[in-house]
Amino acid sequence: MSNSINLSQKFAKFSEHWPPKVIAEMNDYQFKLVKFQGDFVWHDHPETDEVFLVIEDAMEIEFRDRTVQVAAGELFDIPKGIEHITRAKDECKAMLIEPRGVINTGAVTNELTAANDEWI
Amino acid sequence: MSNSINLSQKFAKFSEHWPPKVIAEMNDYQFKLVKFQGDFVWHDHPETDEVFLVIEDAMEIEFRDRTVQVAAGELFDIPKGIEHITRAKDECKAMLIEPRGVINTGAVTNELTAANDEWI
Repeated sequence: MSNSINLSQKFAKFSEHWPPKVIAEMNDYQFKLVKFQGDFVWHDHPETDEVFLVIEDAMEIEFRDRTVQVAAGELFDIPKGIEHITRAKDECKAMLIEPRGVINTGAVTNELTAANDEWI
Repeated sequence: MSNSINLSQKFAKFSEHWPPKVIAEMNDYQFKLVKFQGDFVWHDHPETDEVFLVIEDAMEIEFRDRTVQVAAGELFDIPKGIEHITRAKDECKAMLIEPRGVINTGAVTNELTAANDEWI
């Protein structure tokens, strides 16, 4: 059995933007940390919701019909199958919760598509 | 589709200790806030892991063979089927992530057993 997992200590282990880093598992779900700035890419996850919990700074999630602001200390559930793009003006630190195996860019494959299941 | 969910604003909506309050769902999982102080009750969840993310102050999770401290900004995954008791010296505010339908005291029923699926 593992020890408690300190988010700040885990965030200190990487600096690159966008590729999510797995820090814990719960059943077949994973908790991932991500740092990002700028615009991601329009995509969706047809099979699953995903939750963002912002830890530092803020992010924006744009859908085809609306835009949601998510600040530090706030969470948002992105429903499955809904196209969206995430972005941040300044560097945002967030925790993602979603099933194991989810690809960050969904069905889109481009330079932002990250290796899956990368642990820190 | 909902708005972003602010943890501080949700914590301000209740003061009672122990009964978890649901604030969001992701697929068949729920995010719940809980405030507690003192000792809970020995129990386990045979069917599922559960994750605690401490938001304010600190908690202790005692297992039959070890004890884990979880401070603010730290998370811990309690594996399914492992007996444990949670406690806090001072009031602790935490977020719980677990499948919908999990009873807080597991198979134990006592005065700490909370109504399920209570939203705030």
